[in-house]
Amino acid sequence: MEIRDALPDDWPRIYPFFAAIVDGGATYAYPADHTLESARSLWMDEPPGSTVVATSEDGQILGSAKMGPNRPGRGSHIATASFMVDPAHQGRGVGAALGAYAVSWARAQGYVGMQFNAVVETNVVAVRLWQRLGFTIMTTIPEAFDHRTRGLVGLHVMYQKF
Amino acid sequence: MEIRDALPDDWPRIYPFFAAIVDGGATYAYPADHTLESARSLWMDEPPGSTVVATSEDGQILGSAKMGPNRPGRGSHIATASFMVDPAHQGRGVGAALGAYAVSWARAQGYVGMQFNAVVETNVVAVRLWQRLGFTIMTTIPEAFDHRTRGLVGLHVMYQKF
Repeated sequence: MEIRDALPDDWPRIYPFFAAIVDGGATYAYPADHTLESARSLWMDEPPGSTVVATSEDGQILGSAKMGPNRPGRGSHIATASFMVDPAHQGRGVGAALGAYAVSWARAQGYVGMQFNAVVETNVVAVRLWQRLGFTIMTTIPEAFDHRTRGLVGLHVMYQKF
Repeated sequence: MEIRDALPDDWPRIYPFFAAIVDGGATYAYPADHTLESARSLWMDEPPGSTVVATSEDGQILGSAKMGPNRPGRGSHIATASFMVDPAHQGRGVGAALGAYAVSWARAQGYVGMQFNAVVETNVVAVRLWQRLGFTIMTTIPEAFDHRTRGLVGLHVMYQKF
């Protein structure tokens, strides 16, 4: 597995699993009416942010992550990040590799911590992964996410100081 | 005092205190390089959000608030809001009136709660006001705000279920 900067031409290969994950309704609060073009700016970050892809040896895109400042201006010293692994390639460490990459990237860029604003509490695989990477659940906003099959569930705010 | 929807022509009268408050560096993480035009879309919300102004009997704008969904898609049932009171008109209940208005608006729109994502912990007047309006400090992200005079201070996540 290799992790590299996402190129504009990668987006049409990312969007199918972005769409599948958003439409799955279990992990992300993105607009429901996304299209290939409308969703591009939601995922393909501009500097100071960055979007990367994890690729297999034969060049397949296995997953993607975006990272950058959590807030502009006087909040821009704390990073945030988002992750999507193609469901067809789950279970082989892509999320863990992207998570470790994002933390390393943010440290190298001089951020003093990383905050996840909205981790769905029922996404226990992700929650445990972030905990292993050093993140703590700071609070849970109850019923803040309308899960497609489980109804209203909480959103964790997770944080790690570097 | 009256609270009414903000009109496009109100923006040039809001921007001077928006700019003074952002540049004051004590309460908001907005981009530092704002201009009259670049900041317009940061404050003048489109539906489903709303921006209002509080006006005096002689038509002066005393303060402004914006409110709407805290997240898109599956998080859009929780509201958020932001408030700015012209420093020249502080201490006469403008913030309290705008806060009460925002909560009433969100209830009437059918939101099930309201979340503030980044209340600067040293902004104790605001923190106490939101607590009186029913909000609870859910957590504090340490050192997440670079206060102009106090250095790194925490950002509260505050929440109220309706």
